[in-house]
Amino acid sequence: MAGEFDFINWIIAQHRADDFVRVPPGDDLAVLNWPAADLLLVGVDQVMDGVHFDSRVHSPEQIGRKVMNRNLSDCAAMACLPAAAVATVALPRGVGQSYAQKLYDGLSRAGERFGCRIVGGDTASWDGKLVMTVAILGRSGGIAPVTRCGARAGDGIYVSGALGGSILGRHMDFEPRVELARSLAQAHRITAMIDLSDGLSRDLRHITDLSRVGAELSAQAIPIHADAMRLAAQDGKPALWHALHDGEDHELLLTSPDALPGLVRIGQVVQGSGVWITDESGRHSLQEQGWQHSL
Amino acid sequence: MAGEFDFINWIIAQHRADDFVRVPPGDDLAVLNWPAADLLLVGVDQVMDGVHFDSRVHSPEQIGRKVMNRNLSDCAAMACLPAAAVATVALPRGVGQSYAQKLYDGLSRAGERFGCRIVGGDTASWDGKLVMTVAILGRSGGIAPVTRCGARAGDGIYVSGALGGSILGRHMDFEPRVELARSLAQAHRITAMIDLSDGLSRDLRHITDLSRVGAELSAQAIPIHADAMRLAAQDGKPALWHALHDGEDHELLLTSPDALPGLVRIGQVVQGSGVWITDESGRHSLQEQGWQHSL
Repeated sequence: MAGEFDFINWIIAQHRADDFVRVPPGDDLAVLNWPAADLLLVGVDQVMDGVHFDSRVHSPEQIGRKVMNRNLSDCAAMACLPAAAVATVALPRGVGQSYAQKLYDGLSRAGERFGCRIVGGDTASWDGKLVMTVAILGRSGGIAPVTRCGARAGDGIYVSGALGGSILGRHMDFEPRVELARSLAQAHRITAMIDLSDGLSRDLRHITDLSRVGAELSAQAIPIHADAMRLAAQDGKPALWHALHDGEDHELLLTSPDALPGLVRIGQVVQGSGVWITDESGRHSLQEQGWQHSL
Repeated sequence: MAGEFDFINWIIAQHRADDFVRVPPGDDLAVLNWPAADLLLVGVDQVMDGVHFDSRVHSPEQIGRKVMNRNLSDCAAMACLPAAAVATVALPRGVGQSYAQKLYDGLSRAGERFGCRIVGGDTASWDGKLVMTVAILGRSGGIAPVTRCGARAGDGIYVSGALGGSILGRHMDFEPRVELARSLAQAHRITAMIDLSDGLSRDLRHITDLSRVGAELSAQAIPIHADAMRLAAQDGKPALWHALHDGEDHELLLTSPDALPGLVRIGQVVQGSGVWITDESGRHSLQEQGWQHSL
């Protein structure tokens, strides 16, 4: 049976030192020559079997890709450039080295698309289910990071794509909006931005709470994904409900005083607090109903 | 029942922006103002219930401390200054927010002792067992990182403390040798360094393989911990066996052409390859028998 060091040696063999990664994987820590002019952005995300994916259904490449893409989507939300990442994997005992390599391939290729390199990690096996984590380092690269805190009354509220029903499959296969976020932040005044991971109703609340503003949405402006309609046909909830509350769309949600071509304007930032939605029956308070983990 | 956002809000409330952490926890990513003169060192480690700790025996503070200390020990091994960390926790459903806070307190306090701040994280719950990860960022802070690659024939081989039997309890409560490593690297020529996590026989092999040298150890010079003797009395293996092969001592193992006061010289780097040990019966090849995860 293969051991962790065979797997680690397989990974190490794929890496070389260069001007950015002075000491590649294989030492206690990787050593990076961080660009002096760049701010460093850092975060971490995890995926767990039975929660974020189903190992009986999803391939190891898909699982590795998802955990990397979640982090790349966080980079998009801050309008930074993904630069490097470290990963852990808690492997169910006996899955074999080939499975571990496919997990690694999935995350490594997803990162490569955006110039993000795996520079370290930790592998262990146990009698539990699969858990992977990726911690990502982004660099500002000439664009000031966009936080959740700067929305102002009068700003438009925009999303980058149709929402809802990602559980039907898109949650494993979304596109991190890195280039879009960078080009928006370069050409326009983006006052606040987040990626939609917990659901529009919950993630918009993160922006309004931190920016100390309110938000007014127009129900008919919310772009509803075909998956939300399919799911609505299955479970009887309105498709709009899924667009408002489902998680893991990983589209960008942002506020701007500018008109943003190519994005969908779904409402407006207002003074006060709370999130409101207007539909044919009137104006209602929009409560968070997105996903959260109970402790 | 408390949800992840109550826990996250509790964490966010403990953080403020400053000159180094421009955007503290609470946004998609933290933003750090990385010192322009400093190299960035990065790595990650995980702990899993039933593998690295036993949640029936060990307190949440101990568990949080261990995962942070493993990373701080990696910083010591490179002679860098711990600067910031991000953490994940996969919580068994129903453990409650108080348990989660104690995990956080354990890791946060362990980091604070060395000026290492938690700047981000991810919390999720599931029907599996507890997994925690910490990814750490270290900075060179005026000292060139010490890798595993520079050992040369003629260098002495040193350890920073007595070895073996850490499973009796020390593996939950070791001291990251950060200050010692920094002061050694500042005052002496340290050619290679590693922290003893997988056991002396295995970790020394990492140095000799990467440095393309061999090593000769003197059995009588190996400092044997009292725990190794206690364990030997229980399982019948020689105490020396435990000192050579047990993992999780987290002492420093290093090579230097200088005499290093306060450390224990256990052998010498030689030309060639392989690790050899001389005892009263002669010279033997020392095979790795430390822990590794089977995949």
